[in-house]
Amino acid sequence: MAIAWSFRDVTIQLSCLVLTCLVVSCHTVRYQPTWESLDTRPLPDWYDEAKFGIFIHWGVFSVPSYVSEWFWWDWQGAREKKAVHFMQENYPPGFTYADFASQFKAEFFNATQWAQLFHEAGARYIVFVSKHVEGFTNWPSKYSWNWNSLDVGPKRDLVGELASAIRNNTDIRFGLYHCLYEWFNPLFLQDKANNFTTQNFVNAKTMPELYELVNTYRPDIIWSDGPTEADDLYWKSKDFIAWLYNDSPVRDTVVINDRWGLGDACYHGGFYTCTDRYNPGYLVEHKWENAMSVDRKSWGYRRDTNINDVLTIEQLITQLITTVSTNGNLLMNVGPGSDGVIKPIYQERLLQVGSWLKVNGEAIYGSRPWTYQNDTITEGVWYTQNNKTQPAVIYAHLLFWPRTNLTLGAPVPSVKTTVTLIGYAGSAFQWSTHTTPGLQIVVPNIHMSDMPCQWAWVLKLTDILN
Amino acid sequence: MAIAWSFRDVTIQLSCLVLTCLVVSCHTVRYQPTWESLDTRPLPDWYDEAKFGIFIHWGVFSVPSYVSEWFWWDWQGAREKKAVHFMQENYPPGFTYADFASQFKAEFFNATQWAQLFHEAGARYIVFVSKHVEGFTNWPSKYSWNWNSLDVGPKRDLVGELASAIRNNTDIRFGLYHCLYEWFNPLFLQDKANNFTTQNFVNAKTMPELYELVNTYRPDIIWSDGPTEADDLYWKSKDFIAWLYNDSPVRDTVVINDRWGLGDACYHGGFYTCTDRYNPGYLVEHKWENAMSVDRKSWGYRRDTNINDVLTIEQLITQLITTVSTNGNLLMNVGPGSDGVIKPIYQERLLQVGSWLKVNGEAIYGSRPWTYQNDTITEGVWYTQNNKTQPAVIYAHLLFWPRTNLTLGAPVPSVKTTVTLIGYAGSAFQWSTHTTPGLQIVVPNIHMSDMPCQWAWVLKLTDILN
Amino acid sequence: MAIAWSFRDVTIQLSCLVLTCLVVSCHTVRYQPTWESLDTRPLPDWYDEAKFGIFIHWGVFSVPSYVSEWFWWDWQGAREKKAVHFMQENYPPGFTYADFASQFKAEFFNATQWAQLFHEAGARYIVFVSKHVEGFTNWPSKYSWNWNSLDVGPKRDLVGELASAIRNNTDIRFGLYHCLYEWFNPLFLQDKANNFTTQNFVNAKTMPELYELVNTYRPDIIWSDGPTEADDLYWKSKDFIAWLYNDSPVRDTVVINDRWGLGDACYHGGFYTCTDRYNPGYLVEHKWENAMSVDRKSWGYRRDTNINDVLTIEQLITQLITTVSTNGNLLMNVGPGSDGVIKPIYQERLLQVGSWLKVNGEAIYGSRPWTYQNDTITEGVWYTQNNKTQPAVIYAHLLFWPRTNLTLGAPVPSVKTTVTLIGYAGSAFQWSTHTTPGLQIVVPNIHMSDMPCQWAWVLKLTDILN
Amino acid sequence: MAIAWSFRDVTIQLSCLVLTCLVVSCHTVRYQPTWESLDTRPLPDWYDEAKFGIFIHWGVFSVPSYVSEWFWWDWQGAREKKAVHFMQENYPPGFTYADFASQFKAEFFNATQWAQLFHEAGARYIVFVSKHVEGFTNWPSKYSWNWNSLDVGPKRDLVGELASAIRNNTDIRFGLYHCLYEWFNPLFLQDKANNFTTQNFVNAKTMPELYELVNTYRPDIIWSDGPTEADDLYWKSKDFIAWLYNDSPVRDTVVINDRWGLGDACYHGGFYTCTDRYNPGYLVEHKWENAMSVDRKSWGYRRDTNINDVLTIEQLITQLITTVSTNGNLLMNVGPGSDGVIKPIYQERLLQVGSWLKVNGEAIYGSRPWTYQNDTITEGVWYTQNNKTQPAVIYAHLLFWPRTNLTLGAPVPSVKTTVTLIGYAGSAFQWSTHTTPGLQIVVPNIHMSDMPCQWAWVLKLTDILN
Repeated sequence: MAIAWSFRDVTIQLSCLVLTCLVVSCHTVRYQPTWESLDTRPLPDWYDEAKFGIFIHWGVFSVPSYVSEWFWWDWQGAREKKAVHFMQENYPPGFTYADFASQFKAEFFNATQWAQLFHEAGARYIVFVSKHVEGFTNWPSKYSWNWNSLDVGPKRDLVGELASAIRNNTDIRFGLYHCLYEWFNPLFLQDKANNFTTQNFVNAKTMPELYELVNTYRPDIIWSDGPTEADDLYWKSKDFIAWLYNDSPVRDTVVINDRWGLGDACYHGGFYTCTDRYNPGYLVEHKWENAMSVDRKSWGYRRDTNINDVLTIEQLITQLITTVSTNGNLLMNVGPGSDGVIKPIYQERLLQVGSWLKVNGEAIYGSRPWTYQNDTITEGVWYTQNNKTQPAVIYAHLLFWPRTNLTLGAPVPSVKTTVTLIGYAGSAFQWSTHTTPGLQIVVPNIHMSDMPCQWAWVLKLTDILN
Repeated sequence: MAIAWSFRDVTIQLSCLVLTCLVVSCHTVRYQPTWESLDTRPLPDWYDEAKFGIFIHWGVFSVPSYVSEWFWWDWQGAREKKAVHFMQENYPPGFTYADFASQFKAEFFNATQWAQLFHEAGARYIVFVSKHVEGFTNWPSKYSWNWNSLDVGPKRDLVGELASAIRNNTDIRFGLYHCLYEWFNPLFLQDKANNFTTQNFVNAKTMPELYELVNTYRPDIIWSDGPTEADDLYWKSKDFIAWLYNDSPVRDTVVINDRWGLGDACYHGGFYTCTDRYNPGYLVEHKWENAMSVDRKSWGYRRDTNINDVLTIEQLITQLITTVSTNGNLLMNVGPGSDGVIKPIYQERLLQVGSWLKVNGEAIYGSRPWTYQNDTITEGVWYTQNNKTQPAVIYAHLLFWPRTNLTLGAPVPSVKTTVTLIGYAGSAFQWSTHTTPGLQIVVPNIHMSDMPCQWAWVLKLTDILN
Repeated sequence: MAIAWSFRDVTIQLSCLVLTCLVVSCHTVRYQPTWESLDTRPLPDWYDEAKFGIFIHWGVFSVPSYVSEWFWWDWQGAREKKAVHFMQENYPPGFTYADFASQFKAEFFNATQWAQLFHEAGARYIVFVSKHVEGFTNWPSKYSWNWNSLDVGPKRDLVGELASAIRNNTDIRFGLYHCLYEWFNPLFLQDKANNFTTQNFVNAKTMPELYELVNTYRPDIIWSDGPTEADDLYWKSKDFIAWLYNDSPVRDTVVINDRWGLGDACYHGGFYTCTDRYNPGYLVEHKWENAMSVDRKSWGYRRDTNINDVLTIEQLITQLITTVSTNGNLLMNVGPGSDGVIKPIYQERLLQVGSWLKVNGEAIYGSRPWTYQNDTITEGVWYTQNNKTQPAVIYAHLLFWPRTNLTLGAPVPSVKTTVTLIGYAGSAFQWSTHTTPGLQIVVPNIHMSDMPCQWAWVLKLTDILN
Repeated sequence: MAIAWSFRDVTIQLSCLVLTCLVVSCHTVRYQPTWESLDTRPLPDWYDEAKFGIFIHWGVFSVPSYVSEWFWWDWQGAREKKAVHFMQENYPPGFTYADFASQFKAEFFNATQWAQLFHEAGARYIVFVSKHVEGFTNWPSKYSWNWNSLDVGPKRDLVGELASAIRNNTDIRFGLYHCLYEWFNPLFLQDKANNFTTQNFVNAKTMPELYELVNTYRPDIIWSDGPTEADDLYWKSKDFIAWLYNDSPVRDTVVINDRWGLGDACYHGGFYTCTDRYNPGYLVEHKWENAMSVDRKSWGYRRDTNINDVLTIEQLITQLITTVSTNGNLLMNVGPGSDGVIKPIYQERLLQVGSWLKVNGEAIYGSRPWTYQNDTITEGVWYTQNNKTQPAVIYAHLLFWPRTNLTLGAPVPSVKTTVTLIGYAGSAFQWSTHTTPGLQIVVPNIHMSDMPCQWAWVLKLTDILN
């Protein structure tokens, strides 16, 4: 009320404000449902530090388990020969996609085992498909009667079971994938036929679902997908995000991606996913994510996947390193069988990543991109840094094991610089500077049994000047 | 605009109006969504004249085909022992009601054959279940995705096929049954939990469906069912009826019943159905309907129906006669199998009714209740009249074949009165009046082969004075 | 041991023998496995006296329940369009007949209810299909592993349950139908390809089965079927029959039919069945049976049977009367659903026959053909006699109800002759002889309510001279 | 004819005989159905030289795909809790094992792909389960009607398709596994109840099958299994083997194992298998086979196999080396899914073995056990030899990669002795003899990229004196 405050008063007021913020989670800022406003929200720290997450595609598509999780579309949308032929050969004439649902049994689904596996794989978050383009909800949504996992098929709340298991057994963050549109939902098709001038589908299904999801399961990530046709006004995405940031029970921690309407991907939202398997190879300033699948050809489980379709551990480690070096997080996808089992080949790959991270995690988790992403002289060397120490520690990730000498062009060493191989019990490596710029490292003969890992090796360089 | 019209002007105006009405279907009256207004609408004539209709209960309940069409409720609502035991004995633990849908195959459903059967049965209208309390729609409703007959089970538009067959092959009127509520629809359960202060279910499912039904199939009857809990404000029934009467494509011909909200049955709407199998035995002034089923215990087909559960033709003819005598229509129900077949016992009963009506139809179709409904002296005699002739012709329906003499107390004969047995080739029956009031009829010995029918006989009395 | 016996000794010996025969069932005669010998065996009396039996066709064919119990053959043997089309429209490409078996559930099968129904229908024996041409055994045969009703489908011993129920609840005789050959049994096809010079099929399947059946269930009838291709040497039928007559546990009571090898039908065995629906219309001296089905087109249940396909009660009663008049038994077939229910239309027909027999049974059961089978003057009159009285009582079965007078040309009345209507409470009918030969009967006016039955009427004539 | 032959004549005669033998496959020796005789037959060479085979367990058990290929027994024989519980939770009460068969679809089974995989894995023979203890035949056996892969389930001749693909695309030998007994075959149970005094099962099923198998598919191996209860007289095994050796179409090439009757295993027949996963660790003079499975807990595919249950490639290579060193062949089992897919983890393991054999095959294929099987001084070193060269070449298989020096105690080197690492492009290793006996090898520093393989390494030693 008084116009003239003393400085001291102001200080007290501010202190109170800060105190309040600490105690009751402060929301002095309210976001408006515009990108101008929403895009100003800082990304919660935990996401960038996590670096490595696991994506899980599971749904009715896991029953035909053929071609990909887009099977319904391939069969009855695009009418692709392979899917059409498969149905003709194996099912009676009138069989519909909905008929698959009763065979989605999840009889071996054990969420605790999954949580344990994800923990051993070194994942810091997961993103679980709550509903894919088929529209089937993996939780008992009120807005998807008889087309959800409690009414038909598993007869269980898959989202709920996994959320509990993850939270009760691990420190992993729990995220949910949700597809805004649905290929064959008649309400959606009607809106589309109306050139998106009506919003019956958004009002009756997709938005009520999203609010229900958040209120019920309190996800740390909403990984939105799908809107390849209509803009975010049709989808009412910005209203939802404003609620999510302002009033939802997860407003302090939730992270979102960028697929909220035609034209938004790579431009608006939280972290950017741009396109599937996005991994540009250079630094992208805005936090981004490389969402990719261990099966080259599918995100959902395919019963006939061949070993040639499965990325090797060398390829996966390369994805992880190059992604993190360039400011991305890696979201690595596996598709469980309709029986609820993550099949052994995927367990093997996840555990191989986990074994690598167990040794080299300090160069990944909580790291930051460095000035250089890859080396200026030697190919196959990628950098990350730990900027919490002063001066920063630099990590050089080697995708190959060098012969005798390794020349690194990017780092400017100081006299105090040490070069050590992470996980190696032997001494630091010797180095010299008779190449300019950078340094030349002498790689010792290390016996196979003394190597810290098998597929990529990380050199830690201290006291670097740049 | 001119205040002073000549009489001639008025006459011209009125003539124009009448002409307009005849040509473009006149709607000078608009109904308000209140019972005061809606109840003033005259019942279209065709309905009262039709007298006999066939009701068809078909749905997912035709798959378990056990206990009754309320099987889902018995099993998972009331948890009745019989249904629970049946499921335990015959299905795996997680089997849900939705799993039955894929077995609803309708592989033998031939709407043209049905139409032919209903025609031979003498029905003037049918009422086909478009959706029962299970919520499964027998047409491809946009508001019931993956829970309708095109998406799962038959993979056909059952309502549409039957509507076409009826209209292309017969003069039978096509009516639709529709249940407002749905036992297990989560939106309904939520509204109910909210004490019906929310209307999400009504807005998202039941009302959009009804409008869709009318616009798509143009039914002559909307036979509403269900609202045992909430009043018609919750259901928005009166808004729907006002639209139906004012603006719908069937505004001139459509007939409705009385089940539109808690407390409406027997009080508001079109014809009254009051309770199932309503047949009070006395004249009810407001047009009503006796909706009953040939199977004593069920409206849906039961695979284990015993012959003792099937009403005899004598019982059915009695229902028909007593109902029509007291101002009702008879709506006789049969339940087809999930394969689309109306089983032979029901065909037999329908054709038996048809054979009776072929002989005695003039005493039923287009008839009106008479002063007396049943005779004042002799039991088992029921009356109808044909009031289009002058003086009226009276029909005395005999539920038994009399010995020698039949005394009728109600009719006051004139000297011109003749008494003939409908369908009998022989001479008129002699009668006298030595009983007062009424008349005594001499029943001749008629050889079995000359009898016009087997189960009830109609005497036609002309020139009756009362 | 002593050579010289006195007459008295011999008498004693013979008495002992007779006594033994009475007590332990005497088998001084042993039959040889030749028709010369086997055909000399007298038919056990019970069979001829029974007159009316019920045939039950039940098996895997009750699952498709389409076309007829020959569905497998129609589909994959004859490749008839209707069956092939049905499979293409309703089943996936690789579906086999064996896949139907798991849907043969018999969930409502209640053998006690069946027994009660057969009792009320007035049947004195039943013939139950133990195995049809499909080869599936309705009992747990050791020789039909995984292709019998205990291993797949019902998971019950259908033959055993019905045998017990019939014996525990009724006086009905229990017979078994058994088909010797099997369309698609590879052992049979191999024997056939070998021109029946090998008997692997007979040795491994069909004969072991028959012995197992008799030893386990002790049937009163073995109703053999099938051998349209190979003679009885191939089938080893005569060896089996010799064992049946000489040593089997049912040697004293068992009755067999005549279908034991190519060329045997109508020539050898027990009663003759000749062809399906055999009913020649004249006296056949050798005891025979009219095996026919209530469904005109099938012996197995058809889900799409139309009421026009179901014989009327008038037609059934006509079959019964004409058959018994000419020395046959009537074996009337009904096919239960795969769920174990004899559907209402068949219950109705059986109970209608039962109600007729309740009144007129004395003219059927235990009767004998008379000198004349049908009347010499009036059509539609068929005769039976009761030859246990002296002089014989003659029954004239009227398939129509006569007007005023009925002339019978065949009986030669005596002065003591009386003519009464069976089941009628009124007086005997008057008759005269002014037609020669025979007699003219005055048919009184009987009120509809006093008629003893609805569909055929039996006049009992005593003291007839011929 | 002439009694006195000159030596020259004899020579000519013998030459002719030898010639005949070479051309038309000579069988001067006929074997008697006694072990004395049968055990004298030499093992065809191809088998010992092959060393590495792949075993494939596939059948109806691949449908529940739970616990193991003994699921039926666990469930209904032993009534083990795990299997019983699984059935209770997932199937309706009356579900039988036979009901699984229709779900054995093999829809992705591509025999050519399998053949290609087995080829790349380096297998020289396969053993395919033609029939396991469940009795279901993977070929259309005449003796297993409606319980074989053509009549139900796959509707294909699995044995036939695989035999053709193997023979048309590879040089791999085709063997068949066949189980003599069947847990639940009623004929077997009856024989057993008769204390094996009857042989109905043997005569009607298991022996006709075996002859049919050999005549139809001409297998190179008959891998018999099962007889844990009755001796080979009951099974008639020796008659079968005598026919196999004397008259069958595979008499020249076929190899059999030792499981032909109670007490035979490890004592009679062809190669010995003794017990499952037999690998004694010391030289066994009689040729033997280590039949083991990549899944530690099952031979049939388990849908819920965990990566911990899958043997690592290090373990598999160890099995291969130790087995071959001690005179065994390794038969490594994988179980395909009911859909016909050998899942990626098993493809990976097979291809890993193949990649190892591609480098080190000369030390395995066609090798012979050496004087020593493993080294006398250094653990983890196993020997094989190539005895076709003179003097023999010795292979020392190292299960670990040694540091600097490797001492081998068993070989006695000559001055000409060279030591090379198979697959290594660099120079021979230096060695000395300052340890006695044996030699000490200097292991050079080899860069990771120059190592010939990852999991075990083979040193080739020439000119060894012992």
